Amino acid sequence: MQKVTFYHAGCNVCVAAEQQVLNLVDENKFELDIVHFADQPNRIAEAEELGVKSVPALVINNQVLHINFGASMADVKAG
Amino acid sequence: MQKVTFYHAGCNVCVAAEQQVLNLVDENKFELDIVHFADQPNRIAEAEELGVKSVPALVINNQVLHINFGASMADVKAG
Repeated sequence: MQKVTFYHAGCNVCVAAEQQVLNLVDENKFELDIVHFADQPNRIAEAEELGVKSVPALVINNQVLHINFGASMADVKAG
Repeated sequence: MQKVTFYHAGCNVCVAAEQQVLNLVDENKFELDIVHFADQPNRIAEAEELGVKSVPALVINNQVLHINFGASMADVKAG
């Protein structure tokens, strides 16, 4: 099963996007990992290495899809 | 079946996003309509009314997900 990771920070834009993304993704083909940075701050570095510049973002096959704009990673790190 | 529309303009960012989006979307739940503005310029107005500000963009349940940034709608209209 392919893995897709949705990174977010609990912002309004993030939550709205999350609902649509959860709805869209084919669960028979993908394992969806949802990472809320407030819960998993240790995964901020991983996201940045993958190229995530802002949240919400979806990473699939090492490609980053930035979806709308909730907050920059600098904002995320500033808490 | 719910309908999802992917608007794009053939740009590199659009094409890369299109591949991932086509891959992600659950075809059992969604009918995916792919609109390339070069082929369907008459649908530019429709996209703008839905709130599309840039391409590539995915519209699901009247919510616009702007995915990365390929071109603004102003660029699209300027051809």
